[in-house]
Amino acid sequence: MRAAQAVVRDSRLDAILVFSTESEPAAVRYFADYWPSFETTAVLIPAEGEPALLIGPESLTYASSRSRIAKIIQLMDFRESSQPDYPGSRLPKWSDIAAQYKLKKIGLVNWYLFPYAMMTELAGALGGVEHIVPADALIRPLFMKKSAEEIACLRAAALASEAGFKAILENIKPGMTESELCGIATAAMTAAGAEAAGYPIWCCSGPNSDQAISRPTMRKVQCGEIIHFSIGAKVEGYSASIGRPVVLGQCPDDIRKFMQVGLDAANMTFDEMRAGRKSGDVATKIHDYIRRQGYGDAILYGPAHGCGQMECEYPFLETSSEYMLEADMTFMQDMFLHRGGMGFRWEDGLLVKASGPAEMLSSYGRRINIL
Amino acid sequence: MRAAQAVVRDSRLDAILVFSTESEPAAVRYFADYWPSFETTAVLIPAEGEPALLIGPESLTYASSRSRIAKIIQLMDFRESSQPDYPGSRLPKWSDIAAQYKLKKIGLVNWYLFPYAMMTELAGALGGVEHIVPADALIRPLFMKKSAEEIACLRAAALASEAGFKAILENIKPGMTESELCGIATAAMTAAGAEAAGYPIWCCSGPNSDQAISRPTMRKVQCGEIIHFSIGAKVEGYSASIGRPVVLGQCPDDIRKFMQVGLDAANMTFDEMRAGRKSGDVATKIHDYIRRQGYGDAILYGPAHGCGQMECEYPFLETSSEYMLEADMTFMQDMFLHRGGMGFRWEDGLLVKASGPAEMLSSYGRRINIL
Repeated sequence: MRAAQAVVRDSRLDAILVFSTESEPAAVRYFADYWPSFETTAVLIPAEGEPALLIGPESLTYASSRSRIAKIIQLMDFRESSQPDYPGSRLPKWSDIAAQYKLKKIGLVNWYLFPYAMMTELAGALGGVEHIVPADALIRPLFMKKSAEEIACLRAAALASEAGFKAILENIKPGMTESELCGIATAAMTAAGAEAAGYPIWCCSGPNSDQAISRPTMRKVQCGEIIHFSIGAKVEGYSASIGRPVVLGQCPDDIRKFMQVGLDAANMTFDEMRAGRKSGDVATKIHDYIRRQGYGDAILYGPAHGCGQMECEYPFLETSSEYMLEADMTFMQDMFLHRGGMGFRWEDGLLVKASGPAEMLSSYGRRINIL
Repeated sequence: MRAAQAVVRDSRLDAILVFSTESEPAAVRYFADYWPSFETTAVLIPAEGEPALLIGPESLTYASSRSRIAKIIQLMDFRESSQPDYPGSRLPKWSDIAAQYKLKKIGLVNWYLFPYAMMTELAGALGGVEHIVPADALIRPLFMKKSAEEIACLRAAALASEAGFKAILENIKPGMTESELCGIATAAMTAAGAEAAGYPIWCCSGPNSDQAISRPTMRKVQCGEIIHFSIGAKVEGYSASIGRPVVLGQCPDDIRKFMQVGLDAANMTFDEMRAGRKSGDVATKIHDYIRRQGYGDAILYGPAHGCGQMECEYPFLETSSEYMLEADMTFMQDMFLHRGGMGFRWEDGLLVKASGPAEMLSSYGRRINIL
């Protein structure tokens, strides 16, 4: 919070407003340890003085029990999107907040999430939308390298994710639905210390395996097809994920070779992600390797992305990336390949070290799994 | 879709744009059966001709496998909020969509979710924000009464939710964490046919039981305290929920009496929700009952809220509600009471019948559970 307030002052702003939603809770969780449910939320970080957590009409007891920020203000604007009535409610308005904090110009974090309707109200209170500027890039430097405490949370999340995949390997049978398998992984992760799944986890089988981003369906998994899992646990707000393909019964040779090329490229990523290297050069090297194996058409995106408060967060590792890798940056090594109606993901947490190759945060079942 | 296109024409609009996110997927799911993950999405419903599903850069294979709308258009604006790079990508822009569909004036559904940044782009393409109007109220009449098919989905979701609570009653022990119990319920619901939990389900124990909206914590449940569960399954996009308090071991008399008043008021709600009655009158009658029992201070909100595509959707049942109850409206009877640092929820699906009291969609364990 002190570092963020220094950013506010250096940027000659009166405050930064950090907005979050149920499915994008990271930024508010970082500052307040509060994670909204149904309603939305924000943290107001003034240049000087006490920050405030802003919440909706139904979240007061929940937020009070969680928030590391003592001051909590309820605004009607943070109610559920279905806009329930609260007969007789007299909550403060943005103009009250602006007056209390003497706000003239503010920065907004999660610019791309912030609702138009709320911006209209906020701009009205500040005397015009020109008084509100995007601030995501301003606070990004606070998140790029992880502290020892943050890395400990990621390690715990990676361990719980391994427990989820272990439960899959121990329980999977032909005829189970993709959704059922995700339920089994969820129960194992929460029993192993996860507060929740880090995102809506998925299992993609057969023709569904072609999907990079997905959700589980009621399809029953079968022998001889790729069944891939993207399962990740959340611990104290930090998410680490595991991506693994599995084949039940006989594995056709073309599938085995395809999965092996992906695993080799995934392993190479850990060796290449070293402090002092340029990010884009690493992505290019990995993609060149995949192309030399004849699978260039199967690439969808870069070989890694930042992780921490979100399972997928800035910075991305793409061939166009310009930043330099530094010790204590954390990523998900994320190798998704797809071709001809099938695909898979190899994924594990990755910690850039001061010297040598990156550390793997999870490794359970990181092999060709033919059961 | 035909009914929505008639609304577009009657409203003298060129199209309606229906926006959804990962945690607020309902409206797009209704029209397209597509449910975004990580990225956002929208359905464009023109006055005449073919509708389109709008998605982000990574969701094409996923969306293609799910969408009931054949035409799918990718826009960069629907990418993840962390704004990944897609080197070399040439996706269409809002101006291309506006030209292709000859859009001059459109209605926007999920007005309160739509991001400011996207509104700026869209307004630029349409020649000004005054060409975009809120349209939630325009399409609400399509959702207020449920079809037989929708009610079948809600019944299936209610059954799966019962399986979740059954697993809780069979497995709960002092010392289990709230998160672990939620994992057990999730696994049981997906094994019973749920595609997923309908929302981030929660267990609130001891001092946490005071929370109406919440998330599970790592707190270990204990004997002699209220442990309440809000667990709901989703089936084909329809969510029905169960709310139940549980006490392990000895139950203090004041807790037993408090829970019983809540259960009596919850049961009364099913008797009072009859076709032809004014919604606000029902809410007033239930709240008056609770006040007469001496628990008026424990009320937080009205005794029911709409359910269907969202576990909590329009219309709400508050003392200020003006609409008339009609057959085939569906609600969650939702009795949350809290006082003195503790609380609980009784909740079950409710179907308004053409005559007589409302039908209860779930009833398993709807009793004072002292284990």
